[in-house]
Amino acid sequence: MNPSPDTPPTTTTIDLNADAGESFGNWTLGDDEALFPLLTSVNLALGFHAGDPVTLEAAVVRAQAHGLGIGAHPGYPDLVGFGRRALALSAGEIRAATLYQIGALQAFLTVHGAALGHVKAHGALYNRIHEDRVAGEAFCGAVRALTPGAALIVLAGPGGEALTRTAAAAGLAVRREAFPERAYTADGRLAARTLPGSSIHDPAQAARRALDMARGWVQPLGEEDEAQRIALQVDTLCIHGDNPHATEIARAIRQELGAAGFTLAAPA
Amino acid sequence: MNPSPDTPPTTTTIDLNADAGESFGNWTLGDDEALFPLLTSVNLALGFHAGDPVTLEAAVVRAQAHGLGIGAHPGYPDLVGFGRRALALSAGEIRAATLYQIGALQAFLTVHGAALGHVKAHGALYNRIHEDRVAGEAFCGAVRALTPGAALIVLAGPGGEALTRTAAAAGLAVRREAFPERAYTADGRLAARTLPGSSIHDPAQAARRALDMARGWVQPLGEEDEAQRIALQVDTLCIHGDNPHATEIARAIRQELGAAGFTLAAPA
Amino acid sequence: MNPSPDTPPTTTTIDLNADAGESFGNWTLGDDEALFPLLTSVNLALGFHAGDPVTLEAAVVRAQAHGLGIGAHPGYPDLVGFGRRALALSAGEIRAATLYQIGALQAFLTVHGAALGHVKAHGALYNRIHEDRVAGEAFCGAVRALTPGAALIVLAGPGGEALTRTAAAAGLAVRREAFPERAYTADGRLAARTLPGSSIHDPAQAARRALDMARGWVQPLGEEDEAQRIALQVDTLCIHGDNPHATEIARAIRQELGAAGFTLAAPA
Amino acid sequence: MNPSPDTPPTTTTIDLNADAGESFGNWTLGDDEALFPLLTSVNLALGFHAGDPVTLEAAVVRAQAHGLGIGAHPGYPDLVGFGRRALALSAGEIRAATLYQIGALQAFLTVHGAALGHVKAHGALYNRIHEDRVAGEAFCGAVRALTPGAALIVLAGPGGEALTRTAAAAGLAVRREAFPERAYTADGRLAARTLPGSSIHDPAQAARRALDMARGWVQPLGEEDEAQRIALQVDTLCIHGDNPHATEIARAIRQELGAAGFTLAAPA
Repeated sequence: MNPSPDTPPTTTTIDLNADAGESFGNWTLGDDEALFPLLTSVNLALGFHAGDPVTLEAAVVRAQAHGLGIGAHPGYPDLVGFGRRALALSAGEIRAATLYQIGALQAFLTVHGAALGHVKAHGALYNRIHEDRVAGEAFCGAVRALTPGAALIVLAGPGGEALTRTAAAAGLAVRREAFPERAYTADGRLAARTLPGSSIHDPAQAARRALDMARGWVQPLGEEDEAQRIALQVDTLCIHGDNPHATEIARAIRQELGAAGFTLAAPA
Repeated sequence: MNPSPDTPPTTTTIDLNADAGESFGNWTLGDDEALFPLLTSVNLALGFHAGDPVTLEAAVVRAQAHGLGIGAHPGYPDLVGFGRRALALSAGEIRAATLYQIGALQAFLTVHGAALGHVKAHGALYNRIHEDRVAGEAFCGAVRALTPGAALIVLAGPGGEALTRTAAAAGLAVRREAFPERAYTADGRLAARTLPGSSIHDPAQAARRALDMARGWVQPLGEEDEAQRIALQVDTLCIHGDNPHATEIARAIRQELGAAGFTLAAPA
Repeated sequence: MNPSPDTPPTTTTIDLNADAGESFGNWTLGDDEALFPLLTSVNLALGFHAGDPVTLEAAVVRAQAHGLGIGAHPGYPDLVGFGRRALALSAGEIRAATLYQIGALQAFLTVHGAALGHVKAHGALYNRIHEDRVAGEAFCGAVRALTPGAALIVLAGPGGEALTRTAAAAGLAVRREAFPERAYTADGRLAARTLPGSSIHDPAQAARRALDMARGWVQPLGEEDEAQRIALQVDTLCIHGDNPHATEIARAIRQELGAAGFTLAAPA
Repeated sequence: MNPSPDTPPTTTTIDLNADAGESFGNWTLGDDEALFPLLTSVNLALGFHAGDPVTLEAAVVRAQAHGLGIGAHPGYPDLVGFGRRALALSAGEIRAATLYQIGALQAFLTVHGAALGHVKAHGALYNRIHEDRVAGEAFCGAVRALTPGAALIVLAGPGGEALTRTAAAAGLAVRREAFPERAYTADGRLAARTLPGSSIHDPAQAARRALDMARGWVQPLGEEDEAQRIALQVDTLCIHGDNPHATEIARAIRQELGAAGFTLAAPA
């Protein structure tokens, strides 16, 4: 499907999310202080792949101070691998680890009077639940049982269709997510990071891609013909908080989307 | 104060608690299956000093099946030391670690329709909050902020007075706890484990001591004269789930207290 | 290849190994005290999937007291999963983790005057290096660089052929290992644990199978015709130390092999 | 003892050390690449309080490329606390943890053809072995048993006297260490970090203090009268690699000491 450039945007409000609270003890990762004012939602690390209780509480307080949507960001129990290495948890282990991590976040939300808006799996667990139906069901079942009102973040496009169905079957709302800093293949999936050009480092380019995505399409990698662009229904844009240029990219996206008439806000 | 043996018991209902959910992955500790039918409350390990998400969920389900009171049992982040080694967490670290761990438990309580009855610190953290006012305030403040209806378990007798005051100042109810398997000094404190005779291994002896405690007193170590016994107001008796004879001791205590007209039950 | 039952044994000396030192802090696994007198070699857990420094030193001392061959048993960094869950370490991570763990063991061997005899990967890492050539090269390369005189334990039969070639290319000697408690498929590989009958629990049956293996063959699962047996060149037999019947099985194997004229000993 | 400013330096060669290899997985700490060319020795984190196998191997390779003296830097098993929180390990646990960590480093030294020059405890363990004789004996005993030729780094001045005696009794050589970035009390001990002025941030000032220390004395905190300076026999100066200005400080010290005729080098 190749939508016309003149297609009205699928939405005039869009969310801008990033992973946060990813420091660990004495180690700092990302610049939450600089980045939070530029976001509308954050996905908070919960101690299994990154984050620790003190870091988590500070991130909740900071997110609340900036009026951000707060999401749980559960990951595999693999600190040294930052939750990015595939780890063969069973469905029961995924369920229990998800409940445990979201529960830990809810403690801080409760004492600070904040609410959970969404849940997004991290790293290799994010990939796993998109690709493995049994894992996806375990994850969605845990979220639905504990926090039925929280939305699940799923990859926008064909890569997210299976998980979207699983979430719907569990009774969960979803938010479709796109990555302005990542290239897409001609079939609407994320291009492998090993491909040349798969990561976009230029803030201006990332911002133009963010606007495309907000308008409902993306130009695939290696394809300059606009007729070849791919439709992508997007509710939220994700930028990488651990990118050293994250704040520049966030600023460029805000400016580009604002100038085009979009409002950046977390879903109500 | 040396109460008369004829003093009526301070209560006719008493709680019997043990630490549980202390297995970790492939390692088993304690025999929850055999012990739970004999208890009235359990303190569940929460992943920092013992326990893991799968173990924790199983322990919640089992506790609920037996109608037990369920308590959070937060500890220091020291798996290899089982939370028994002093670890110099700051007050802020104690607060955040306590919130995190209780929150994790609450997730499983929520999805299984159970309620949190109490909170009891584990091991070296238990000792610390009894002895260090700032740590006690951090711990009580966390419990009060998150779960104001949960009771704090404190050591019965003079060793628990300071923490009882801290809990009261925070607005927390307490349950006073005694240890039938541990000897007490003449001033009503737990005798050091290094003292000869400080640990009681005989189930019959532990049961007699449990009855004394339920009736409001304890005979100090090395003192056979009943006139020297010490008053101890006790709401709950703790036995050690990792003791290989834990089930025999629990059975003996149930029989001794039942024969004396006590009802074993978790506080409402 | 179906060797005749009259084929002389491939060896009259055979090694009997088990994983050991698998306790962790307060948690006990296996009964090293009872099992060590019955073994000829042990594979010591090194802190990543099981074991801790105190446990490791105690296991080294105990192994030396019994004159056992001592092997390093490196695993994935996954305590809660006991190193049994696939974890996508890169080749560089496998190399470094292997060097690190063997080095830690060597410290205790040095101070106690013991020598390293062999290296055996644990759990999911064992499977990985048998199946993934790049991982196998990383593992063998690490062992060869650090301890060129140590033998690598590989699965006897077709399942171990690839790793045997990798080890040979790296300049490492191998010991071929078979599992009397595990069933084999008709093509000489370990049968999946999920298959009925894949685990042998009866000590007498395990002992008969151990003798078959020492004589150079194994009867595949579901096949009673001796003509269908499979040749298997075996240097060492592995029993599972965490099996509650491990000592009975070890005793039965020792008796069966001794009666048949085999000598149980670690390779020189 | 107030040595004259004209006293000849106690040495014309001095060592400049820093903690290194303190990154952990995805988290970076310190700038080893920039700092190593300016040092003469490094103390490498070994995975218990910081560092991981891949980081450790990279640090060994880098240290060797720059011809640096390489030291083991064992710490408490407390990643989230960075080994800076007191943790009540027993003497046996200190011994085993020390052997384990040094052994892990030796694996990388062996495969890269490097040698261990020294051992320095980290953080709360450094403080502990200076203050607690039993802990110091456990630590020194482990180093002596495993690496008798390695020097133990001890605090220069009265704070290090007890540990120096313990090391001597164990048969270990010591290197006396001073901290140009830290203030000293009038009795020659490190001033508490909580005291105003206890940390020196200005590279020029740190460099002047480094020169004083190389010449055998230090000016105590709050004391401007040179007559009040304290004698300090110093073999090595330590700068903090996790200080964001570490490279400037190292450059300033190198220049100041070089201009005064000192040679910076690790002990042979």
